Amino acid sequence: MGFFINLASLKTIVMYKIEVCLSPELFDKYTLENKIVVIVDILRATSIITTMFHNGLKKLIPVNSLKEANKYKNDGYLVAAERNGRKVDFADYGNSPFEFTTENLEGKTLVYSTTNGTNTINIAAKSESVLIASFLNLSSVAHYVVNQKKDVLILCSGWEGNFCIEDSLFAGALTEKLLTSKNFTTNCDSVILSLDLWNIAKIDINQYIKKIYQYNRLINLGMEEIVNYCFRIDMTEVLPVIEKYYLVNINK
Amino acid sequence: MGFFINLASLKTIVMYKIEVCLSPELFDKYTLENKIVVIVDILRATSIITTMFHNGLKKLIPVNSLKEANKYKNDGYLVAAERNGRKVDFADYGNSPFEFTTENLEGKTLVYSTTNGTNTINIAAKSESVLIASFLNLSSVAHYVVNQKKDVLILCSGWEGNFCIEDSLFAGALTEKLLTSKNFTTNCDSVILSLDLWNIAKIDINQYIKKIYQYNRLINLGMEEIVNYCFRIDMTEVLPVIEKYYLVNINK
Repeated sequence: MGFFINLASLKTIVMYKIEVCLSPELFDKYTLENKIVVIVDILRATSIITTMFHNGLKKLIPVNSLKEANKYKNDGYLVAAERNGRKVDFADYGNSPFEFTTENLEGKTLVYSTTNGTNTINIAAKSESVLIASFLNLSSVAHYVVNQKKDVLILCSGWEGNFCIEDSLFAGALTEKLLTSKNFTTNCDSVILSLDLWNIAKIDINQYIKKIYQYNRLINLGMEEIVNYCFRIDMTEVLPVIEKYYLVNINK
Repeated sequence: MGFFINLASLKTIVMYKIEVCLSPELFDKYTLENKIVVIVDILRATSIITTMFHNGLKKLIPVNSLKEANKYKNDGYLVAAERNGRKVDFADYGNSPFEFTTENLEGKTLVYSTTNGTNTINIAAKSESVLIASFLNLSSVAHYVVNQKKDVLILCSGWEGNFCIEDSLFAGALTEKLLTSKNFTTNCDSVILSLDLWNIAKIDINQYIKKIYQYNRLINLGMEEIVNYCFRIDMTEVLPVIEKYYLVNINK
């Protein structure tokens, strides 16, 4: 956190710090005290979680292993589970946002396990304040973060532990909104990179994403409609946060 | 490695793959078989190693720990060692490229330890073919890589195990040159990011670098001249490579 004296008003302006972590495997490079952690997995976990709460889900339990997900299933829970882009046999749902309708989810509790994104959630769960973000709820997340008056760390899920562009693009989009509030600053190279990429991509996001790895992987799996959906901006105002071992929406 | 059939000439064109690893801590995400590894630590280890060989150094022994460096010193070796931007007490030289003159180095063997860069070299040392690269020898590195007819992995040293922009900028500059040869392709998001950043930065590199973390850190340590030197392109044609446990220049 940096301090800046505004001589004109003689009021001390507190500047909050923005950081981006490009992969869960770099998460231990960051301190967590008094910070909001914003988790991003654009393709597709956090886009889908946003959708689930938008459609009335009451509670989401993220689990890492399929063994754990299967145990919940045997205990009578509804389970969504995906590996390598495909629904797991025993699960009720896979990983398409279009499966998670109000009819399926309203007022319910769901157990959720994905290749990538739920792992990131569990890595970040030890932090004081954890928020789930996607392009679908971008402005809502930005508004909340600005009002919290805390430093923010945007945690990108990446792909198989490595960097991916789509999460970094979101980090750039969120950074742009936070900087507009005039209460944030940064000296983090991962933020600068994200903002630079976002400034290139936002001119024609649908064109830009065609060159990224995950876009091409999912298109080859026949998921063009799903991918395009995940880049829709501000479809909803929900704000999923971690509470104990599960997620709830705090902006109903 | 991908294959592409050119129907016009009926000759098979082999396309080699470019990858970028953004931090040594992500190095285990990559396979190494039949690949050239290009190590980059623009500020400053690989820029300085390039300078050393340009000025006639015969052999460089990179070591991780100061204890090891001190042992070599006691055995009568010349030692360059730096921690947190400053020369270590027992060392003959620190980490300014301007210390490594022909007068000091011609025909000699030097032991070298830095906060960041020498560690990356030792991580990559198990690879079949390892090259030391900086802006100072950019074209020479590109020329060599094109002629090797192999896939290439550009390993960024980063800063304290995390992403840094300056190494990624170099990865973008090298990628630009490799793509020009028409024998390379990529599906790696870290390459795309590096090329996008480089395309922004190259318009006015001296202006662009003013926003990066390491630039500001080193300027505050009074090293403006050194930093600007490290962004000079094609000052030399040397090609430092790993041979056993030390480095030599193969382009005399």
